[in-house]
Amino acid sequence: MDKFTSLSDVGDPSGLLALAKEAQLNPHGWASLGKGKTLCLLFLNPSLRTRLSTQKAAQLLGMEVMVMNINQDGWKLEFEEGVVMDGDKAEHIKEAAAVIAQYCDLVGIRTFPSFKSREEDYSENLLNAFIEYCGIPVVSLESATRHPLQSLADWLTIETFKKSQRPKVVLSWAPHPRRLPQAVANSFLEWMRVADVNLHIAHPQGFELSDEFTNGIPIHHDQQSAFQGADFVYTKNWSSFHNYGETLYPNKDWEITLEKLGNASFMHCLPVRRNVVVADEVLNSSQSIVIPQAGNRVPAAQAALIQILQNL
Amino acid sequence: MDKFTSLSDVGDPSGLLALAKEAQLNPHGWASLGKGKTLCLLFLNPSLRTRLSTQKAAQLLGMEVMVMNINQDGWKLEFEEGVVMDGDKAEHIKEAAAVIAQYCDLVGIRTFPSFKSREEDYSENLLNAFIEYCGIPVVSLESATRHPLQSLADWLTIETFKKSQRPKVVLSWAPHPRRLPQAVANSFLEWMRVADVNLHIAHPQGFELSDEFTNGIPIHHDQQSAFQGADFVYTKNWSSFHNYGETLYPNKDWEITLEKLGNASFMHCLPVRRNVVVADEVLNSSQSIVIPQAGNRVPAAQAALIQILQNL
Amino acid sequence: MDKFTSLSDVGDPSGLLALAKEAQLNPHGWASLGKGKTLCLLFLNPSLRTRLSTQKAAQLLGMEVMVMNINQDGWKLEFEEGVVMDGDKAEHIKEAAAVIAQYCDLVGIRTFPSFKSREEDYSENLLNAFIEYCGIPVVSLESATRHPLQSLADWLTIETFKKSQRPKVVLSWAPHPRRLPQAVANSFLEWMRVADVNLHIAHPQGFELSDEFTNGIPIHHDQQSAFQGADFVYTKNWSSFHNYGETLYPNKDWEITLEKLGNASFMHCLPVRRNVVVADEVLNSSQSIVIPQAGNRVPAAQAALIQILQNL
Repeated sequence: MDKFTSLSDVGDPSGLLALAKEAQLNPHGWASLGKGKTLCLLFLNPSLRTRLSTQKAAQLLGMEVMVMNINQDGWKLEFEEGVVMDGDKAEHIKEAAAVIAQYCDLVGIRTFPSFKSREEDYSENLLNAFIEYCGIPVVSLESATRHPLQSLADWLTIETFKKSQRPKVVLSWAPHPRRLPQAVANSFLEWMRVADVNLHIAHPQGFELSDEFTNGIPIHHDQQSAFQGADFVYTKNWSSFHNYGETLYPNKDWEITLEKLGNASFMHCLPVRRNVVVADEVLNSSQSIVIPQAGNRVPAAQAALIQILQNL
Repeated sequence: MDKFTSLSDVGDPSGLLALAKEAQLNPHGWASLGKGKTLCLLFLNPSLRTRLSTQKAAQLLGMEVMVMNINQDGWKLEFEEGVVMDGDKAEHIKEAAAVIAQYCDLVGIRTFPSFKSREEDYSENLLNAFIEYCGIPVVSLESATRHPLQSLADWLTIETFKKSQRPKVVLSWAPHPRRLPQAVANSFLEWMRVADVNLHIAHPQGFELSDEFTNGIPIHHDQQSAFQGADFVYTKNWSSFHNYGETLYPNKDWEITLEKLGNASFMHCLPVRRNVVVADEVLNSSQSIVIPQAGNRVPAAQAALIQILQNL
Repeated sequence: MDKFTSLSDVGDPSGLLALAKEAQLNPHGWASLGKGKTLCLLFLNPSLRTRLSTQKAAQLLGMEVMVMNINQDGWKLEFEEGVVMDGDKAEHIKEAAAVIAQYCDLVGIRTFPSFKSREEDYSENLLNAFIEYCGIPVVSLESATRHPLQSLADWLTIETFKKSQRPKVVLSWAPHPRRLPQAVANSFLEWMRVADVNLHIAHPQGFELSDEFTNGIPIHHDQQSAFQGADFVYTKNWSSFHNYGETLYPNKDWEITLEKLGNASFMHCLPVRRNVVVADEVLNSSQSIVIPQAGNRVPAAQAALIQILQNL
C-alpha cells in the first residue's frame, strides 16, 4: 500500500481487517518494523483520538513521531494555484509538502472541508495537492470527504461485537448545533460495502448524502422503522450534501434514546455531544460501545502503517 | 501506589522521599522500568516546569510520552453532569477520559481552579471525574487544591539543603497582581506535616488558608517576626480562601528582601514575578535555591512514576 | 564546540562542513552518540523546517527531544533587567533559562528581532541572556541577527550542486509585504566568506545591510548586471538596516523570474511567497534547488549537534 486515504487505496480490505485483528490481540507484534522510520502528523484541525491513537500505533511499531499543528506552530498555508502571495499566508502547500517529505518517511495529515464550495471539497484538492507535492506515503487523518482510519476501526469494532454472521447495521443522522462534514458518514458507508453486513441509512428528508456513497443502500426517513431489528446503530450528524453545508437544529426527534435503540449496540466516532446527539442514558449504558470503538483506532492505525511500512 | 494526587495517595511518604533521593543521585537507575509503557500528559493550563520535568522523568524511565494541550489541540471539554451540550464544548470529560485511557498506561493532568465557586474547586470535581472515567493511574500535574509533584520536590530540596536536623520552615504569602490558586501553599503544608520541620505560616490578615491545611500550624501576621531564625522561607502568593478568590495588590510590605530573609534560604515554586513577589537581590543571591528546587522536580516525578509503574 | 549561534562559535568551519557532508551520506552513522541526552527546542516564533529538521537530526543521533512553544505552552517571558513584573509576563528569562537547563543537556532557541530598537536587536541581548542564564550548550534556531543552521545547510547545498571550483553566488534582495529580519542574509554572508565562492550582493538603494556583514563584498543596485554569469542566486527579502525595519513594497522589479535567473540555480531558505519574491515558473522549474536545500537542514543540524555532543 503506498497511501491510505480511502478504501480504493486498499488492495485487500479483508486482509487489512485481519491484520487489524492481529494487532488488536498482539499490539507489540511488530515492535521493530518501523525502527529508524519517522512519521510526521500534521493537523490543520483539532484532534484527540486521531492524534493520540496514531502516535501510539506508530510508537508500537518502533517509529519516531513528530506532531505539528501546522498553521499554529508553523506558517499559514496557501493552497491556491498561481496566487500572488501577499496576504497572511506565508508558505505554499507545494513547498511545505515537499519540505516535510525531506524530514520523514511517511506523513499523516488532517484537513477538514472548507464548506466554501462542494465541488472544491469533494475534489479533495488539498489532500491531493499534498500527496502530489510531498511524494511520500500519506495517511489521511480525516479529509474533506473521508476518514478511513475511523472506518477501519469501526469495521473492526463490528467484527468484535457482532453476535450473528451478518448483522444489521444502521447509519443514523442525529441533531447537532454546528455544520459538520460528511466525511465520517461517507467513509463508513464506503467501508461497510465490503463488510458482511445488512446496511441501512436513516436521516431526515434533505440530508441525503452523495449518491457516490449511498447508491443501492436502503434509505429510511423514519428512524424508528429503520432501527427495527438493528444490531448496531452508528450515529453521526452531517450537514446537507445537496444544499451544501445546511444544518437542521434543533431537531430533538432524531436524538438517540434507549427506547429507540432497542437491543442494538450504540456506535459513534466521537467527540459526541451528550443530550443533543444521544441521551446520557445511552452513553452510560452497556449498549454503548463507543469506548472500545475508540480503542480500536490503535490497531486500525497499526494495520494501515504496517502495510505502508512493508511497502517502503 | 495507584494514583498520585495528594499525600493521602501515598502509603509511605518517607519511602517515597527516599526513592526521590535515590533518583536524584542515580537518574538512570530505572531506565527499563517503563519500557513499552506510555504516559499521556494533558494540560488545561500553561506549564513549563511540570511539562518538561515530568516528560524528562518519564523518558529516564524508558517510557513513551504524548503531550497534549487538550483544549487547544483537541476539543473543548464539558465537565457538567446531565447538560445539553449545544454550546461551544464538543466533548464530555466522560468520553475524553475513557478514550485517553485506551491510548496510554498512565496519565497526568493539570486543571487549575475555576474560581467560580469555592465548593466546586475544593471538591476537585474535575480531577475526580477524570480519575473515575479514565480508570487508569492518574498523576496530578497540579489540581484546584494541590500540587503534589511540587511538594515532593520541595521536601527533597529542604532535605538536600538543611543544615540542622529540624529546620525552621516558614511559608510566607507575598504580593501578586493576579488572582492565584491556593494549591501550592495547601500542598506544601500537607507534605511538610510529615517532614521533620518546625513549620510556620506568615500572611496578612484575610489570607487565611483552609483550616484543613493549616490546623495546628502557628500563623503569624507579622512577617518579620515569623522569619526570626528561619532556615527556609518558602514564598508564594495565594488569593483569599475565605473571601474566595479576592486579591490584595499592591502590598509591597510583604515582598521578600534580603534584609527580611536574614540567613534563610529562599524557595519558590516558580514562575516568580521579580520585584513584586521577591526582590532581584534575593533571586540573584546565593540564598536563592529556586533553581535546584526546580531541578528536583525530575527526581520527584521519577519517584511518583516508579511507584505507580511498580504497581501496574 | 560549546554553542552554535554564529560562525565565530565554530573553530573549524571546513571541518564542520565535511562533517555535514558525511551526515548527508550516512545519516545513521552516529545513532548512539546522543543516547541518554535530551535536547529541548524552544520556539518564541513560528517554525516548520527548523522544528522538524532539528528534531529529526537529534533523533538520528539517538537523543530525546522535547519541543515547546514557550509563550503559548508555558508563561509569557520577561527579558528586561530590573523590571517590576506586574504586567502580563509571569516569568523572567533568568529563571526560565536556568530551569530549562535542569531538564536537558542542550537547548535550541528561536528568537526573532523585536524591531523596537536596532541596537537592542543587534546586541542579541535576548539570546545572550538565555545563554548566560542557562549555562548549557545553546543552538540558535535563528536569532535576531543570524541563522547559522540555515547558513551551514546553504553552504552544503552549494557544495553539492556547484559545477565549478569557485562558483559565482549572488545574494539578492526581493520584494515582500511584511517587515522581515536581516538574520538569514547576514548569516549567509558571514558563512559564505569562509566558502570558496565569488560572492556578490544585489539590492535596491536603501537596503544596505550592516557593514559588519557586507564589508568588502561587491554590492550591486542593478539586479540584472549582478546576476551576470551567476551560478547560484540566493534570494531573500530583508527590511532596511539603516532606516531600521523600513520595508519597500510593492516593488515588482526585484521579483525573481526565469529570464533574470539565466542559468543560475535558485536558492531560498523558505517559507517563500510565490509570485511576490519569486515567480511560479522559477519554483516549478528544475533550476530551483530549494527542496534539497531544505533537506540539507538535517545533516547541517546533525553536524552542529555532533560537535556539541562530542564536547559535552
